[in-house]
Amino acid sequence: MIKPTLTDDLVHMKHGAGGRAMRALIEGVFVDLEGEGGEAARMDDGAAIPFGDKWLVVTTDAHVIKPLFFPGGDIGRLAVSGVVNDLAMMGATEVLALTSSMIIEEGFPIELLRRVKASMKAASREASAPVLTGDTKVMGRGEIDGLVMSTSGLGVAARVVRDAGLRLGDAIVINGSIGDHGLAVMSARHDLGLQGELRSDVAPLNGLVRVVLAAGGEAIHAMKDPTRGGVTSALSEMAEKAGVSVVLEESSLPMSDAARAAADLLGIDPLGVANEGKALFGVAPDALDRVLAAMRAHPLGARAVCIGRVVAQGGPTAGTLLLDTGFGHRRLFERDGEPLPRIC
Amino acid sequence: MIKPTLTDDLVHMKHGAGGRAMRALIEGVFVDLEGEGGEAARMDDGAAIPFGDKWLVVTTDAHVIKPLFFPGGDIGRLAVSGVVNDLAMMGATEVLALTSSMIIEEGFPIELLRRVKASMKAASREASAPVLTGDTKVMGRGEIDGLVMSTSGLGVAARVVRDAGLRLGDAIVINGSIGDHGLAVMSARHDLGLQGELRSDVAPLNGLVRVVLAAGGEAIHAMKDPTRGGVTSALSEMAEKAGVSVVLEESSLPMSDAARAAADLLGIDPLGVANEGKALFGVAPDALDRVLAAMRAHPLGARAVCIGRVVAQGGPTAGTLLLDTGFGHRRLFERDGEPLPRIC
Repeated sequence: MIKPTLTDDLVHMKHGAGGRAMRALIEGVFVDLEGEGGEAARMDDGAAIPFGDKWLVVTTDAHVIKPLFFPGGDIGRLAVSGVVNDLAMMGATEVLALTSSMIIEEGFPIELLRRVKASMKAASREASAPVLTGDTKVMGRGEIDGLVMSTSGLGVAARVVRDAGLRLGDAIVINGSIGDHGLAVMSARHDLGLQGELRSDVAPLNGLVRVVLAAGGEAIHAMKDPTRGGVTSALSEMAEKAGVSVVLEESSLPMSDAARAAADLLGIDPLGVANEGKALFGVAPDALDRVLAAMRAHPLGARAVCIGRVVAQGGPTAGTLLLDTGFGHRRLFERDGEPLPRIC
Repeated sequence: MIKPTLTDDLVHMKHGAGGRAMRALIEGVFVDLEGEGGEAARMDDGAAIPFGDKWLVVTTDAHVIKPLFFPGGDIGRLAVSGVVNDLAMMGATEVLALTSSMIIEEGFPIELLRRVKASMKAASREASAPVLTGDTKVMGRGEIDGLVMSTSGLGVAARVVRDAGLRLGDAIVINGSIGDHGLAVMSARHDLGLQGELRSDVAPLNGLVRVVLAAGGEAIHAMKDPTRGGVTSALSEMAEKAGVSVVLEESSLPMSDAARAAADLLGIDPLGVANEGKALFGVAPDALDRVLAAMRAHPLGARAVCIGRVVAQGGPTAGTLLLDTGFGHRRLFERDGEPLPRIC
């Protein structure tokens, strides 16, 4: 895997957008900070620490979203789901503790804080993931835009699953429609009038992942949630790390009509926008049917489907993500930054 | 302990200042979110989860500080030390993992990020507290003031120590001079010209706490770090929770000449400003000498001293903090908000 290089002197929006620029920032600035943990392993979106015959998994996520309340969710639901999903993607479906830190702008309505709290509580119960402690800071007016949050999670995994484990022949499975979160948020932000139909998919996925791991066992070779940077970014990174080539079948990509309409109106690629209730699984072919059946029996996997295959391992195409359009293959590239076109 | 009541509709600066107003916000908004953890116990600045014959302790802290770089430290050293100290105050002196989340303003110099990273790394090594994972988000220009951070920590405690354990007769011990951090930061912010002499005390205290617990054992009844709200706020809360009355001896309070001068110039009470490398211990009287001797042998406890006593348990004075001025007792009250007078 070729490491992206940091050539900038200043931080740009692209450095927070989940693609190559962000990895360059992390590799260029933080790489020798993280990972000095002896036996502990720095992982995909977290770290795993051997503890008895299991693994303790820790992860953290910062949440900055506008608007704070959007169709299908809010920053509170996002903050809980995001870290639960990062844990789940490493196999830690049992959550021991979440922590929540909030930075609030002076003058922020306390009634809105109560709403955020209520959403956190609901998501926390859905995931059986208790929020055990928190911290609150206040900044002056104009020093921060409303409310930002960071959540961290502590989970337990019997087996750590990586996002780097794809193998030749694996099926690429997703648990439902693509692009709903990012497109719902952008539609709300730009007041496109699609709010009624388009809702964020934000949800904690640890219950679904438990079902997948129970059904698939060792046949689940890799997992990753396509958040910032979307499906393209997540699968590109998975392909790069495993040194494989992945082909997505365009006709099989699940997408709602409302999401397609919003993507057209905004002029952006739905494969590049964030999902917050979706996971990508690399599944050995002989386990595909039973994994899909198990997923479809779960409320968050009812529309689970195979969207592609790992077609080559090593060789000149290693690390590439291709889209089979029905008229040939087109290479998909990770974007460097924010998928949203500037609308002034 | 009388719970403070939340009567405001909007968030004010006082709600982030570590005193009664902040506790009112937490009690009024977040109380039923936290603590739904079954066996896990919500603690002082974190939570403890029974795990085998030990406790896993988790904590989180948000860091907003101006300026980001100040005499004696920076936001990176603060972010690592803050969570290490929260863990240590509950007895978790062994740190398994730290996580770091950063929210950065577009246009922030990458060179400054490298400096923050270097400080984090140095503090992480001092504390043997590995930073295992992180997250980075970028907000647009003007949406956030430079850089804010949240750090979380996971530690292990053989015995959980609370801040509520003070008993009649306990000595109140501090490991050195009072007010240095808050006064250094405020002096830098207002360019008082005292920077050379006055330095923040920010440091990870888990090594010192290990020494204290080894020397004192069960005789260490309570611990708390006097951060936001300072010594007054920390000891008031300890006295309230334990239902005891504490008397501080004014003549024994350790304070540097530079800190006294800065406090005079700024017109604020040094007992009310944050410390980031100090801890308060409630020590059974028969263990006081050996605890002080052990602390003084540690670099961060060289100036450890007994500053007061628990003089009553229950009764009409329960929950009060008194200052013995040499001419009588004066009651100290927690401030509601920011200790800094508004300087326009």
